[in-house]
Amino acid sequence: MSPSSKERPIGIFDSGVGGLTVVKEIMKALPRESIIYLGDTARVPYGIRSPETVLRYSRENARFLISEGIKLLVIACNTSSSVSLQHLRQSLDVPVIGVIEPGARAAVAKTKNGRIAVIGTETTIRSNAYEQAIKAINGSVEVRGIACPLFVPLIEEGWIDGEVIRLVAERYLSPLKYDNFDTLVLGCTHYPIIKHVIAETVEAGLIDSAIETAREVKKVLEANDMLNRSGGQPSRRFFVTDAPEKFREMGRRFLGHELTSVSKIVLGGE
Amino acid sequence: MSPSSKERPIGIFDSGVGGLTVVKEIMKALPRESIIYLGDTARVPYGIRSPETVLRYSRENARFLISEGIKLLVIACNTSSSVSLQHLRQSLDVPVIGVIEPGARAAVAKTKNGRIAVIGTETTIRSNAYEQAIKAINGSVEVRGIACPLFVPLIEEGWIDGEVIRLVAERYLSPLKYDNFDTLVLGCTHYPIIKHVIAETVEAGLIDSAIETAREVKKVLEANDMLNRSGGQPSRRFFVTDAPEKFREMGRRFLGHELTSVSKIVLGGE
Repeated sequence: MSPSSKERPIGIFDSGVGGLTVVKEIMKALPRESIIYLGDTARVPYGIRSPETVLRYSRENARFLISEGIKLLVIACNTSSSVSLQHLRQSLDVPVIGVIEPGARAAVAKTKNGRIAVIGTETTIRSNAYEQAIKAINGSVEVRGIACPLFVPLIEEGWIDGEVIRLVAERYLSPLKYDNFDTLVLGCTHYPIIKHVIAETVEAGLIDSAIETAREVKKVLEANDMLNRSGGQPSRRFFVTDAPEKFREMGRRFLGHELTSVSKIVLGGE
Repeated sequence: MSPSSKERPIGIFDSGVGGLTVVKEIMKALPRESIIYLGDTARVPYGIRSPETVLRYSRENARFLISEGIKLLVIACNTSSSVSLQHLRQSLDVPVIGVIEPGARAAVAKTKNGRIAVIGTETTIRSNAYEQAIKAINGSVEVRGIACPLFVPLIEEGWIDGEVIRLVAERYLSPLKYDNFDTLVLGCTHYPIIKHVIAETVEAGLIDSAIETAREVKKVLEANDMLNRSGGQPSRRFFVTDAPEKFREMGRRFLGHELTSVSKIVLGGE
């Protein structure tokens, strides 16, 4: 790959703001890489849409990022990863990484007693996407999924500390205490924001899909000799399909600093 | 109106399950009326869509109910009421009732000190729809809106009693205690489900939009001589645009009994 090609940005899309936890970890692991992020906030949440619709949205998101010249695509959305990863891998000329496989692999590597719990939105848990990914790596591992539907609204409301989030976490996660799961996968890109609360509530080792996905991105860029080694200032650009102000506000909470460049774009359909 | 025309059902639509609180109150106030309900669950939530899109969805919902031969239409959705009430009133041949006007009128009638608070979703509060409706009746009334984004997910999760919902209510509503509002409008069709918690938390008199809307429906049917006076068994039919099982489950919580007839339909667009 030519040096100038290596300077091309990493493309990341999610249905909303959750994927920003993945952006944060990629910025930490690969500080010299430029990033372009698309949050499809006009059509969030993907979890309640049909697979056909999610695939169509995902293709439109990917097409936009490809047109911006990305060198690698990250699907930072659980629903889209489970539905469209294979399709996008086949149809695109750049490497494509989802959020489910890296977390599943890390969990299998970490568990000592072969008992892994996964928490996520109702849609992710019902889809059994993590269970399938984990079983594909090691069929003898036992997997339990627990839906935690209130975590996302609490995080988006900013109630990430204090009594309410602790009580909610206790209520969702206390069944795990008695069942001897030694590994817990944060199977939703929002959850790293309340990792401190979850860590206080359960004894298990936590797998942060955002960190694992960032590691995977680094590995793939290295393996393909695609790391940006130029000394230039990397750019970070953010696009949404609706409500850029709200995204900017939420972005501060997710990334820990102001998002300077947030633009609204229109994608096909609605 | 001919007796057989009077037997035609009342049509009600909402973006999801919230409108069932309105159904419940209409069933109480008008037990002999047949009801046909449409929950646009494939396109929920309306609050994050543009006004043009909400209007298009509302027209499609209304068209379906009209094709089922309804004699009166209730828009049991705050977002749709604020966006599409006037339009549907102009374009349809049946009376159309929204959820905002009845609640606003009842609040103005109830307040003694002219200070009314309104709670609702972020979209409803930001739209100032209640404030405008209240000021249109009495311009000297002071209105304060408070967004309570966690109430809907908590209600949909079924956490309608206990410590979490009480803490959340306390946090959202405690500012009202010190500001001497004597009347509080439940500006979201989900909220009647947690009226007991809200009543414990604030001193103000509560306005339940579902009850007020049902009263309005009764008044309009009476005024137009459209009440069903036949002795036949009224029918209650429920339609959704996605996930009928989930709707049935939630329906039990909202109506207090099993929904026997829930069917999935497809509307134009998606």
